[in-house]
Amino acid sequence: MSHTKRSELRRLPKRGSHDPQSIHAILDAGFVAHVGFQTGGQPFVIPTLYGRDGDKLYLHGSSASRMVTELEKSISVCITVTLVDGLVLARSAFHHSMNYRSVVAFGIAQKVKDGERKLRALRTISEHLLPGRWPDVRAPNEKELKATTILEFVIEEASAKIRTGPPLDEEADYGLPVWAGVLPLTLRAKLPVPDLRLAEEVELPGYVLRFRKD
Amino acid sequence: MSHTKRSELRRLPKRGSHDPQSIHAILDAGFVAHVGFQTGGQPFVIPTLYGRDGDKLYLHGSSASRMVTELEKSISVCITVTLVDGLVLARSAFHHSMNYRSVVAFGIAQKVKDGERKLRALRTISEHLLPGRWPDVRAPNEKELKATTILEFVIEEASAKIRTGPPLDEEADYGLPVWAGVLPLTLRAKLPVPDLRLAEEVELPGYVLRFRKD
Repeated sequence: MSHTKRSELRRLPKRGSHDPQSIHAILDAGFVAHVGFQTGGQPFVIPTLYGRDGDKLYLHGSSASRMVTELEKSISVCITVTLVDGLVLARSAFHHSMNYRSVVAFGIAQKVKDGERKLRALRTISEHLLPGRWPDVRAPNEKELKATTILEFVIEEASAKIRTGPPLDEEADYGLPVWAGVLPLTLRAKLPVPDLRLAEEVELPGYVLRFRKD
Repeated sequence: MSHTKRSELRRLPKRGSHDPQSIHAILDAGFVAHVGFQTGGQPFVIPTLYGRDGDKLYLHGSSASRMVTELEKSISVCITVTLVDGLVLARSAFHHSMNYRSVVAFGIAQKVKDGERKLRALRTISEHLLPGRWPDVRAPNEKELKATTILEFVIEEASAKIRTGPPLDEEADYGLPVWAGVLPLTLRAKLPVPDLRLAEEVELPGYVLRFRKD
């Protein structure tokens, strides 16, 4: 990964990093990316699932989708992953903040054409989201593989931003009778809802029960 | 809100809607937006908090931030809000999906200059995130207001997309011995963490305890 002006941390650089390890850790903790690209003078931001392999992100989509048809033209793309960790409640309105981790990555996507590589990328996306699922399910057939476009996005450069910890108030405000602190937030799984047509004697897999992304 | 090609639902239009009520409901249920814009041939996607007032979204940021300096040039912007509701586990890899609600909105942002309107917008953002908080905290002073840029984004057009319900498998796959169903996901608050320098006898406000965004 390189580092030019576009990934420069202009605001609060102390919260930021270009360290690949921090970037990978955030990408691995998330599973929804917001993909930004421009076409016809109009920017678009599309949410999508992804998987990571080194400095590559894999996206998939229907060959008919706008995101896929635009990205496969090798245009400039920005992919952002954001994890919300908590509300930071200060004594003053001004110092309210958010605890979060985010990555903003820049690069270009290319269509994966080879069938074997497409399959591998789909497995990467699936195992990124829910490790253990892929070997359990019916693999894509020829027709399904054809209907799916896989995009390989190589991260040319990226930056991570992390805020943690308590509010930072003005010294004069600490005495105010205002509750201050952090309200931690996290994405949690609720009880799995089995499909009504589940085949008999199929048990809930452990990897579903243990699902956790944070 | 109008409706042109840019907000056309190209993929799975049955999941989509241009109905303002559905769009507002999703915007009200979320609180992190991903803001997309292009500058120097490079798209950027930046996560940020927001508040809604009718068909307007308010964003705020430091006057030094890239998002603010670019958006106040009245360029085309795309703002996307995504809520993740669950993993949809099908019997085949191909039919795996996600339950979610998302809004993709297009428009242009303008800087709010008037002090009163800035304050009102900040309150809108604050009350959007945590209703009840604003009256409790020290209001922004002159200097803080100056350091904050408020952007008013008028939604020119938008589309909502919603997926709910169980997986939809190929008829031939229903008999497979594969667990299928939905793993519902939701953003949950954990126990609030009071600031170490909290003034004595300040109680945890009910609106913090009751925080819920979904």
